[in-house]
Amino acid sequence: MKIELTPIAYVKNDRKEVADDHWEAIISEITLAENIIEETFDGIEAFSHLEVIFYMDKVSDEKAKAQHRHPRNNPDLPKLGTFAQRNKNRPNKIGLTTVELLERNGRTLKVKRLDAIDGTPILDIKPVMREFEPKGDIRQPAWTQVIMKNYWK
Amino acid sequence: MKIELTPIAYVKNDRKEVADDHWEAIISEITLAENIIEETFDGIEAFSHLEVIFYMDKVSDEKAKAQHRHPRNNPDLPKLGTFAQRNKNRPNKIGLTTVELLERNGRTLKVKRLDAIDGTPILDIKPVMREFEPKGDIRQPAWTQVIMKNYWK
Repeated sequence: MKIELTPIAYVKNDRKEVADDHWEAIISEITLAENIIEETFDGIEAFSHLEVIFYMDKVSDEKAKAQHRHPRNNPDLPKLGTFAQRNKNRPNKIGLTTVELLERNGRTLKVKRLDAIDGTPILDIKPVMREFEPKGDIRQPAWTQVIMKNYWK
Repeated sequence: MKIELTPIAYVKNDRKEVADDHWEAIISEITLAENIIEETFDGIEAFSHLEVIFYMDKVSDEKAKAQHRHPRNNPDLPKLGTFAQRNKNRPNKIGLTTVELLERNGRTLKVKRLDAIDGTPILDIKPVMREFEPKGDIRQPAWTQVIMKNYWK
């Protein structure tokens, strides 16, 4: 089964190179693709947060595979499967981040905490609703602290 | 720009028909596609919640468009753009839900709160980490309460 998708928008920001850390200060603009009508953003201003699903097109096809490896190739961390990690080298090259919506201007959104580099194509945007947040306490393994140490800095 | 994706897994559950509400009791199995190695799930058991990105293949191409309409066609609700809603009729037909991971058995996960019908192809699975949760209070408009009334029941 092959699935064909088309970007609905594109990212614009100052992060030109692929990098693992230090995303906190990055402010991004998300502008609708030419074939998408502006009214698709109507009502979005009423939400504080959005889920942005993007396509990490800079990942090579060779690296976009289901893997079993140490996160960030750090041998001190356990060997883990692709779907137990959020790293970019994964089948389908899909990224997903919850961002803060700062502003909407016509066809463009200004957002904070989007960890996608300049030019990244966006596949979908969904408003965050409390009803879709994790139910119950979130449990996660200790190794995630090592990975996330400088991510939002 | 055309993007070609391949399912990494498929959903199995008792929900055979497309429906808007009453997802709370649905327990689903997610089984890896044949070409994906089992080790890609290694370590996933340490997480309580997962984000599941799926492809709503039952949505017709005609309906999979950027829209500007009343949620659930209810004229009492404001007319809103596709990206201010989470409904299934959207470009790229992508669904996204945070599920509870109940169990992993080899190539299969048992999960709760996945609002995807039987047979739905999955594009990606990511572990939920607190560091990627919304920062600050979530603000959302009043109309979402109408929509969500019977969703998780």
